[in-house]
Amino acid sequence: MPETHGKVPEPTLSRLSLYLRCLRRLVKDGLRTISSAEMAQRCGIAAVQIRKDLSYFGEFGRPGIGYDVHHLLARLTEIMNLDRQQRVIIIGAGNLGSALAGYSGFVLSPFRIVGIFDNNYSKIGRQLWDLDIVDVNELPELNKELKANIGILAVPADAAQEAADLLVRVGIRAILNFAPCMIEVPSGVSVRNVDLSRELEVLSYHIDRVPGAASDLPSDGE
Amino acid sequence: MPETHGKVPEPTLSRLSLYLRCLRRLVKDGLRTISSAEMAQRCGIAAVQIRKDLSYFGEFGRPGIGYDVHHLLARLTEIMNLDRQQRVIIIGAGNLGSALAGYSGFVLSPFRIVGIFDNNYSKIGRQLWDLDIVDVNELPELNKELKANIGILAVPADAAQEAADLLVRVGIRAILNFAPCMIEVPSGVSVRNVDLSRELEVLSYHIDRVPGAASDLPSDGE
Repeated sequence: MPETHGKVPEPTLSRLSLYLRCLRRLVKDGLRTISSAEMAQRCGIAAVQIRKDLSYFGEFGRPGIGYDVHHLLARLTEIMNLDRQQRVIIIGAGNLGSALAGYSGFVLSPFRIVGIFDNNYSKIGRQLWDLDIVDVNELPELNKELKANIGILAVPADAAQEAADLLVRVGIRAILNFAPCMIEVPSGVSVRNVDLSRELEVLSYHIDRVPGAASDLPSDGE
Repeated sequence: MPETHGKVPEPTLSRLSLYLRCLRRLVKDGLRTISSAEMAQRCGIAAVQIRKDLSYFGEFGRPGIGYDVHHLLARLTEIMNLDRQQRVIIIGAGNLGSALAGYSGFVLSPFRIVGIFDNNYSKIGRQLWDLDIVDVNELPELNKELKANIGILAVPADAAQEAADLLVRVGIRAILNFAPCMIEVPSGVSVRNVDLSRELEVLSYHIDRVPGAASDLPSDGE
């Protein structure tokens, strides 16, 4: 695993993901090098911010030449652990969990949904895409085989903490939480929250406000 | 619309949504006042941050007493435009769009899904929850009646910009974008991006890293 220069802030990581997407596009377009100014324009992020974000991981650009597209793509892919398959399980086979299980955006990604679990007997055993919905009580035994390292919580708020505790108990250290509440996890476990009501509430603030006061910042403040 | 002291940063708005959730819980629990220290503990946000966030909208706390729970809840609800119904349409009736149309988290909220649109003739006309999936080409005419003010994009990346342009054209000024790409909108239109692959990529970074280097910051950098 590559070393970093200090702890990397979460917004930097989120932008790295954006740079990766930009770099994949550049490779497709056949570009070999790109200036930081052009990269900034393509990503919609200031060049100074890009340089600062990349500086956590070493020196990448060369004066007068810019970034080597293939090299930067390979290095960032490695830094983000995206050069290997990441095995994902979903807790909650309701509308959202089911939609996530079939999300086409994962098809060409390193993320592979390897299991979906629920505690509702009307759902357990039913087939969803190419997976069977499994009793969540079987997760501790089954994950020895599945070896998932990312868990997605697609459960109601009142079931979220218990489900998070279970994910932690089976050894999962990265959780994407769709339940509209905060979950508590031990140090060393990473959580990202996707809260749809909260996103809509922030948008609601802007409604009917004068254009000059509105903001089109994406959700992570870029 | 209440006046603000300067332009409000997007992360502040996202935290206001969190404070609202906390205040609703306090009302349920029968509390009338709360100190900023206790509120900080309940929300998981530093007291100084809460005071700074609220200061955009006036003076709320009283020394030695703290915040009046009902008053603060009412004021923040009004500030966020959550004291009136917000009418939401969804573009894209695939797995994700369909799941969002039936999302139970909206039931007790001011957000009402009033329409769902697609361009796929195998979907148009089918019923989804209590809505009919409508041809997206009918949106300009239909929105005169629907009067939606928030649009959700649940379309593939290559259809996102066209769909966003359509939302802007029918007068929508707030867009929640689930497509894994950035969309361009005129000044005065607010966009929040929810990018599932990006969230997973950030989590992936943390996998196998030493616990001390991990972070459990939520996605908006709080």
